[in-house]
Amino acid sequence: MSVSRTVRLMANAPGMDAIVITNDGEPFLDSSFWYVTEQNSGCFEDSFAIIRADGSMDVLVNILEEETARTGKGNVLVYHDRAELEKYFRESLKGCHKIGFNTHSATYGQVQGILKMAGGVRDVADAGKAIAATEAVKDAREIAAIRRACTISSTVAKELPDYLAEGVSEREVAARMDARMRELGGTGNAFDTIAAFGPDSSQPHCMPGDYKLKQGDTALFDFGTKYDRYCSDMTRTVFLGQPSEQMKRMYEVVRQAQLAGIDEYHDGADAASADLAARKLIDASEFKGRFIHSFGHGIGMDIHQPIYVSPRSQQKLAAGNVVSAEPGVYLPGIGGVRIEDTVLITKDGCERLTSFPHELTVV
Amino acid sequence: MSVSRTVRLMANAPGMDAIVITNDGEPFLDSSFWYVTEQNSGCFEDSFAIIRADGSMDVLVNILEEETARTGKGNVLVYHDRAELEKYFRESLKGCHKIGFNTHSATYGQVQGILKMAGGVRDVADAGKAIAATEAVKDAREIAAIRRACTISSTVAKELPDYLAEGVSEREVAARMDARMRELGGTGNAFDTIAAFGPDSSQPHCMPGDYKLKQGDTALFDFGTKYDRYCSDMTRTVFLGQPSEQMKRMYEVVRQAQLAGIDEYHDGADAASADLAARKLIDASEFKGRFIHSFGHGIGMDIHQPIYVSPRSQQKLAAGNVVSAEPGVYLPGIGGVRIEDTVLITKDGCERLTSFPHELTVV
Repeated sequence: MSVSRTVRLMANAPGMDAIVITNDGEPFLDSSFWYVTEQNSGCFEDSFAIIRADGSMDVLVNILEEETARTGKGNVLVYHDRAELEKYFRESLKGCHKIGFNTHSATYGQVQGILKMAGGVRDVADAGKAIAATEAVKDAREIAAIRRACTISSTVAKELPDYLAEGVSEREVAARMDARMRELGGTGNAFDTIAAFGPDSSQPHCMPGDYKLKQGDTALFDFGTKYDRYCSDMTRTVFLGQPSEQMKRMYEVVRQAQLAGIDEYHDGADAASADLAARKLIDASEFKGRFIHSFGHGIGMDIHQPIYVSPRSQQKLAAGNVVSAEPGVYLPGIGGVRIEDTVLITKDGCERLTSFPHELTVV
Repeated sequence: MSVSRTVRLMANAPGMDAIVITNDGEPFLDSSFWYVTEQNSGCFEDSFAIIRADGSMDVLVNILEEETARTGKGNVLVYHDRAELEKYFRESLKGCHKIGFNTHSATYGQVQGILKMAGGVRDVADAGKAIAATEAVKDAREIAAIRRACTISSTVAKELPDYLAEGVSEREVAARMDARMRELGGTGNAFDTIAAFGPDSSQPHCMPGDYKLKQGDTALFDFGTKYDRYCSDMTRTVFLGQPSEQMKRMYEVVRQAQLAGIDEYHDGADAASADLAARKLIDASEFKGRFIHSFGHGIGMDIHQPIYVSPRSQQKLAAGNVVSAEPGVYLPGIGGVRIEDTVLITKDGCERLTSFPHELTVV
């Protein structure tokens, strides 16, 4: 039998007597709650998972979540009011002094409230790294879910040229992409779809608006779906009619940069290597300094998980990590190109989980 | 000229020298950031709005957000690294001792990180109530956006019977609803659509699964869309074929409870009154004790804003508030009924912004 997630988590958290994972209301929910309880349903607002050093776990939920909670792991305790919640916290954390929180997802109010409810003297520890380290290595079930999400969004990526014609708006294409991902079995967007045409494509985080596609425009799409709570993430850039020589060259530089970065992806590699390889190639071109973000990030139940594929990253990659590979070049007022795949790190190298034609596509 | 949002905010925050609104990464974004900057685009990860007592505002963003940030309010400061961010924090918070945070959205890590960057001795104050009070009263532009979101989801609510037939799954209907809301101009789900058939309908927060609709089943749908970042929220419960006498009676009790609650909605009313009126009616029926949540909540850019229409609420309603009206009755293993509208509080009473046939609907 494989070691349970909670036991692995606590092995990554030496010195902590317990880890408390908290969910406030939507959108302040922590995907780690679903990770440790090993289920994929439920809202779990105002719910808490308390994992003690031995890996045992209490799951505190209100009555709205009771039925769903019982389908997951952990000892489910249903509270009916604040006093009962307080009682459960005191009991669950009995003898625990150093309490880890996911301080990058738990709200300030939640942490303060739990410390008050638990009473006694407690030390707050940052369990973020322990949680990230545990979640970074995906198991077979998780990889299967991500693979399915990637297959769904890849289908849409391949269909994209069919959605484009002069006069169609960013908003219309984004809506069609989202609907199609749902139709193909996706359970919802992994994040708000980016569809950016013409000069809008130079804003890496542009939201789709009323801009209508014109001949010669760049059309950049960054999107992903969820499947069983797991995300895919990909970017395809295409052109309506012949692009300028500058944009053609930009596309080729970004494409080569992605290949150079992906070449560095393997078990045991420095995460920074992939970024630096891609950046070196871009900075040796006329687009020097125009790659203004990182090469990649971790992907899981959250679209951004804390694996940083950036120039200064100190992390090492391991088999089972799932990361993006997304170099880009942006010229304000002119346009941008980004090419992105979701990639699984393997023992021998890596595997792209997304697929679409990477060569220059003119619609 | 009307008083700016930041001036109104600080008037609600006596004693605070500044309020810092923080965005971490997706999904830990605070809609208040978009509220104070008065824009509806951008991702604004790792971005901060600093509002001083006089209502002046600095907006700290990284280079990815620069172009978008400049389309909104506030003095935009672009940081290129941590050292520069730290410098801006020190300068923006010069002379400010009592710093308000939205402690129910700012993460513990963000608050600690900002205090460290700002340096000096600072007091943390909870600005949550000040922000909530400011955002609770919607202006004409906000109401127009909510009204549009409500019109979109109401169209889907009216079409719902056409989506239903024996053998269709919860997941399929939810996907169709979501696609249709997008097609009608919605910019994304306000929350994950709930579609719960038969016994699943007794779980108030059930996520759509593979259950297939059968004759005699209850079909409960809780859904909403966003438009210009603002949400709609509504629930319609219908039946495939004749329901049992018990379910018919349940439907009628919930329908009457909603009317009783909505009758209490007006400027100056105690928020608790609406809940108590609905609850009294349900508790006088054979479904006593089966209304296991609150009657309503505030609605805005977040699907749950802190107006609590619950038995113990101490809040008063005011013209310009937008709240849900959503009584429900749940019998585990049998089924549940919930009926919900989005409602605008007005000077004289209230106005339902959502619309659909409220009488018992047998498909």
